[in-house]
Amino acid sequence: MLLVNNIRLSRIVRNTWHVDLIMIASCMGAYFIREYLIAHHFSVPTIIPTVLGTAIAFFIGFNNNQAYDRWWEARKVWGGLVNDSRSFARSLIGYVPQSDENNAIVQRMIYRHIAFLYALKASLRGTVDLIYVKYLDEAERIEIEKHSNLHNAILLKQSEDLEKLSRSGQVDGFKFIQINEMLVRFSDQMGMSERIKNTVFPTTYSYLTKVFIWLFVVSFTLVISQEMGVWSIFMGWIIGFVFVSTQINGMNLVDPFENNVAGIPLNQITRTIEINLLQMLGEENTPPPVMPINEEYVL
Amino acid sequence: MLLVNNIRLSRIVRNTWHVDLIMIASCMGAYFIREYLIAHHFSVPTIIPTVLGTAIAFFIGFNNNQAYDRWWEARKVWGGLVNDSRSFARSLIGYVPQSDENNAIVQRMIYRHIAFLYALKASLRGTVDLIYVKYLDEAERIEIEKHSNLHNAILLKQSEDLEKLSRSGQVDGFKFIQINEMLVRFSDQMGMSERIKNTVFPTTYSYLTKVFIWLFVVSFTLVISQEMGVWSIFMGWIIGFVFVSTQINGMNLVDPFENNVAGIPLNQITRTIEINLLQMLGEENTPPPVMPINEEYVL
Amino acid sequence: MLLVNNIRLSRIVRNTWHVDLIMIASCMGAYFIREYLIAHHFSVPTIIPTVLGTAIAFFIGFNNNQAYDRWWEARKVWGGLVNDSRSFARSLIGYVPQSDENNAIVQRMIYRHIAFLYALKASLRGTVDLIYVKYLDEAERIEIEKHSNLHNAILLKQSEDLEKLSRSGQVDGFKFIQINEMLVRFSDQMGMSERIKNTVFPTTYSYLTKVFIWLFVVSFTLVISQEMGVWSIFMGWIIGFVFVSTQINGMNLVDPFENNVAGIPLNQITRTIEINLLQMLGEENTPPPVMPINEEYVL
Amino acid sequence: MLLVNNIRLSRIVRNTWHVDLIMIASCMGAYFIREYLIAHHFSVPTIIPTVLGTAIAFFIGFNNNQAYDRWWEARKVWGGLVNDSRSFARSLIGYVPQSDENNAIVQRMIYRHIAFLYALKASLRGTVDLIYVKYLDEAERIEIEKHSNLHNAILLKQSEDLEKLSRSGQVDGFKFIQINEMLVRFSDQMGMSERIKNTVFPTTYSYLTKVFIWLFVVSFTLVISQEMGVWSIFMGWIIGFVFVSTQINGMNLVDPFENNVAGIPLNQITRTIEINLLQMLGEENTPPPVMPINEEYVL
Amino acid sequence: MLLVNNIRLSRIVRNTWHVDLIMIASCMGAYFIREYLIAHHFSVPTIIPTVLGTAIAFFIGFNNNQAYDRWWEARKVWGGLVNDSRSFARSLIGYVPQSDENNAIVQRMIYRHIAFLYALKASLRGTVDLIYVKYLDEAERIEIEKHSNLHNAILLKQSEDLEKLSRSGQVDGFKFIQINEMLVRFSDQMGMSERIKNTVFPTTYSYLTKVFIWLFVVSFTLVISQEMGVWSIFMGWIIGFVFVSTQINGMNLVDPFENNVAGIPLNQITRTIEINLLQMLGEENTPPPVMPINEEYVL
Repeated sequence: MLLVNNIRLSRIVRNTWHVDLIMIASCMGAYFIREYLIAHHFSVPTIIPTVLGTAIAFFIGFNNNQAYDRWWEARKVWGGLVNDSRSFARSLIGYVPQSDENNAIVQRMIYRHIAFLYALKASLRGTVDLIYVKYLDEAERIEIEKHSNLHNAILLKQSEDLEKLSRSGQVDGFKFIQINEMLVRFSDQMGMSERIKNTVFPTTYSYLTKVFIWLFVVSFTLVISQEMGVWSIFMGWIIGFVFVSTQINGMNLVDPFENNVAGIPLNQITRTIEINLLQMLGEENTPPPVMPINEEYVL
Repeated sequence: MLLVNNIRLSRIVRNTWHVDLIMIASCMGAYFIREYLIAHHFSVPTIIPTVLGTAIAFFIGFNNNQAYDRWWEARKVWGGLVNDSRSFARSLIGYVPQSDENNAIVQRMIYRHIAFLYALKASLRGTVDLIYVKYLDEAERIEIEKHSNLHNAILLKQSEDLEKLSRSGQVDGFKFIQINEMLVRFSDQMGMSERIKNTVFPTTYSYLTKVFIWLFVVSFTLVISQEMGVWSIFMGWIIGFVFVSTQINGMNLVDPFENNVAGIPLNQITRTIEINLLQMLGEENTPPPVMPINEEYVL
Repeated sequence: MLLVNNIRLSRIVRNTWHVDLIMIASCMGAYFIREYLIAHHFSVPTIIPTVLGTAIAFFIGFNNNQAYDRWWEARKVWGGLVNDSRSFARSLIGYVPQSDENNAIVQRMIYRHIAFLYALKASLRGTVDLIYVKYLDEAERIEIEKHSNLHNAILLKQSEDLEKLSRSGQVDGFKFIQINEMLVRFSDQMGMSERIKNTVFPTTYSYLTKVFIWLFVVSFTLVISQEMGVWSIFMGWIIGFVFVSTQINGMNLVDPFENNVAGIPLNQITRTIEINLLQMLGEENTPPPVMPINEEYVL
Repeated sequence: MLLVNNIRLSRIVRNTWHVDLIMIASCMGAYFIREYLIAHHFSVPTIIPTVLGTAIAFFIGFNNNQAYDRWWEARKVWGGLVNDSRSFARSLIGYVPQSDENNAIVQRMIYRHIAFLYALKASLRGTVDLIYVKYLDEAERIEIEKHSNLHNAILLKQSEDLEKLSRSGQVDGFKFIQINEMLVRFSDQMGMSERIKNTVFPTTYSYLTKVFIWLFVVSFTLVISQEMGVWSIFMGWIIGFVFVSTQINGMNLVDPFENNVAGIPLNQITRTIEINLLQMLGEENTPPPVMPINEEYVL
Repeated sequence: MLLVNNIRLSRIVRNTWHVDLIMIASCMGAYFIREYLIAHHFSVPTIIPTVLGTAIAFFIGFNNNQAYDRWWEARKVWGGLVNDSRSFARSLIGYVPQSDENNAIVQRMIYRHIAFLYALKASLRGTVDLIYVKYLDEAERIEIEKHSNLHNAILLKQSEDLEKLSRSGQVDGFKFIQINEMLVRFSDQMGMSERIKNTVFPTTYSYLTKVFIWLFVVSFTLVISQEMGVWSIFMGWIIGFVFVSTQINGMNLVDPFENNVAGIPLNQITRTIEINLLQMLGEENTPPPVMPINEEYVL
């Protein structure tokens, strides 16, 4: 998540330089084609780039809207994980009677939940992140790693401990359904995150947008070179840049779990939950919050 | 679901060639009509294609938005099936006391749920897919096939087994409502999928869009041929192609359960659930995940 | 619900002929006014129809979006009725212990639910449809018909039978709340259908749209007649037709429970539920599904 | 809620006459300024009103969309009150065992609920409406009127009666949560209505829209007066009227609980619930439905 | 929340003066560059600002839509807090049997809930607001302030008191889940508020919008100065002002919990809940409602 209001020029150039080169080359091509091939035969009607502009505006708007929706939905899902993690811990701590044995189960379940979050984060980010190991019993870790979906396996373990509390009468039916409801919600949020990660935004949209922007830039340069001459190469690129940067901007949001500056700050969110849960358990040595990098972004 | 970013030209041509032919013929007709019939009488005002462009932009935008919404809703419904299938299995495995008889019922219910998913998938895809048979008892299969809606009949069977667990006291009221809640959700998701499949997107929208694009391409060619001469046939087709390919692109998403490259990858999703559930049951021989075809798409 | 992709020309003409006549008359009026009154005094600026076109585009887009939303919401509500009807029947059949007396109550409740659906459908369609009588006890029918809202009265009867099952201990508290939940949902869906039926889409929108389209067609004809002469009458009508048919198309969706080809196919949906429920009861003589009329639409 | 499709001219004039006067004066001013001050110095570029038109289109569209959403949300909230009122009455009548004492409590609770609706309506409409007194016990009324929020106080009374039924064992825990759930929903719907009523739509939007429409009308008149002369005053006003009436139309929906023709017909909805509930109680003397006024609108 | 319809000019100037200065300087620069450098070489094509206008329209529209959605979602979350606070108090007062001890717990829990709201408000506003101290026991306050998230710690305390009521049998399982459900909802609403506060609206959107508006104003002035001469500086600024003020207007809504005139009136909402809850407890000395400042806005 970017924090600063003024994007560094270097960041924009880094994101768009190869597209910029293609655009400048196309504008130059268009200029010379018009100058030496078309100019003597016919004039290029202004309506062509105007109509193409309409098509592009729709495409870029559509892509940005859908990308932002994916990004905001992802943020909501992880916001839900924050809320439900707190409710889960609050229920366990508040409603399970205090005794040495019970307290051990409660602590184990809350630790295991932190492991669940770190395992889910690592899977969504596609990174290797072994923090989750710290919060799991060794034997349990081995059992869990037999599954292809680690976080799902962790949830299954939670059910077993909850069943233990239920069968021994430490937790009555009413409290059982409250706590189990949270497990169901974790399952939902885990699956929603996986859905957003695994569903490729229809590639035809971004592909056609690229083709149409190119068509637009070329026809636009053809038209304005009739009035502006060689300066049309520069203007063609400027206008193309406006559309291209908007499009790239949207596409940066379409995969919100990527480990980049535009993504959802999963590190920060997970750490916030970790701190909240440990403090609820009464622990005093909590890890520090995740800090912004260069005061520019947070991951 | 398409995976690659660069669509093959052959795929686009295959999707649009008959429309392309119609457009080129229309543009040629428009060119000759203007050249030999209209040119000496009056000039064609630019405002005509401009105004038509506005109407088309609305139509194509509307169609694409609604199509994408149907596609994304379908994806969410099947994402919900993933989540609830895991919660269903987790509840059965975690909360039904372990005994030979109980374990048999739990395994039967989870197998039957996999059958439910395969039967639903086959019905939505309109294909014959007999994988579901594998996960059903022979006698049960015969009974179920008397119903016109197989998947609904399977859910009825689940209720009967759940009632057995409830009546014999293996599952108390609180756990009963948790598990039954999942059956209600499966019923909802099954019905939502059927709704998207069976509700024809209002055909007037796609019909009128086709008519208006045609009107636009003809009037556009009439107007630009005044400046560009015979090249207007080529430009008319290019611009028409922009609008037509956008429209076709949207219409590919409108029926997301079709067995084509743009549809929801039901094969892959169903297999993922199958693997998760079998691993939760502790089985080690799980089928392999569904792999992309030609690294290009997944079904 | 229309099924065919190519709308018959006759259907379009039937829907728009009186508007077409008004438009052609207006275009002729505009042509003659410009030719004999305006032409010698001033020229009509192109910006007038261009700006009006923007206003109309907003209006028609707005109307179509809201109309489609009403239509799709209506479809979802009835999709929900399908899902919950199945869950209701599944709960009754699966969870009420089998005995002669119980089976009679279960069958009566499911029959009464089919009556509920047919009564609701008749009320939404504003038609007299006595199928519901078939599924009701005579005495009960008389009692129900004292109410101004038949379907609501039927739900009250369902509660009484459910209470009977509950009080005699056939259904415990947990199952009671599951089944009652379905009655609450039926009440919601019934009320949502009534809301869509009874809430008039703000008439100012469709009224102003008509006025503005007329203003647009007249000013458009004034402008193009400066270049095209008498052909402007034809073009003015064609362009007006594009906007008018789009507007009419949207307005056809705004009342989705009407008994016409654009509406939600309530006959088909109700029959589907009827067949599902009867088959779940084990009946073999189920009525045939509702078939499309002329292969063109289904009601 | 307006019922007729053709708005009376008198209603439109009444809504817009003072804006019309301002616009005509501005157009006349613009005409004379251009004729006597600007004409000899420079021409006014067409791009100015064109670009302003884009800004206005966005503003008016945005305002109308948000206004309609508020209106439709308000309608849904009151639709929800209809549904839940019926479910509330159905639960009380169906699930509380019949006895003189119980029947008195049930009747009192249902009467009190009607009082709740009338009190809420009066508060939302900002009118004095003493119908609610009729459905309340005198002593209770005095106690309730001590609160600044009457309807909230009525709900508190409902809880006390429900608790009485629960403590005396007339209603078991399962039925208790069903009925209490309805009280929670009434609390939600009451608060949602208050939210829509009390949240002022950001006034900057409507203010800036007014300023920009004025800028547009003036610049539009400046531009067209170059071609049309004195007729530009008339056309400027016509085009301004198109935008102004659209804007006013939207703003009429933004406060949907106002006691005017564009608002939600709270009188009609409340009366419908009243009739339904009294008929469910078996009463035969129910008040007549609320009828349209002049067949034109219903309040 | 602004209450007045006519924004004071001083407020607008205060919000935009530094942008106005930049725009006027840019317009003057553009005018002189065209006059002395460009004019003799080529003319600037009108299509450049027209196309840029389309891009800006999309951007500003997108930003305003998303900003308004954040603002309205924030308002809904706090509307939900109003509703659930009342339901929470109603359940405690209505369903916990009256006794000195119970009444003390009920009062303590309701007071603590008011403290929760004030602590949450202070955290969202980023202000120091010690009203919450008044409603907390001294010992409890010290314990709570050990947590980095005060409001979450308060919720944990609520669970403990609820557990006390539950364990001593004052509240049965059914009532327990109703009251606990409210704690879960408070946890959700607290987390949703934090999500809106902590998630920076993608800064690339507002940054690119600023850059593109600047490009637009410059090219617009270049174009119109060809016709209007020095007056183009004034018109360039006016048109730029239209877009800039719209953009700033939207960005004022994007952080709805800020302590400014455009934000959600948290002071007013919190006080309303405080009054309602105290009156439900039967207290007569309730604090006065929050009044508008200068009749202009409410915080």
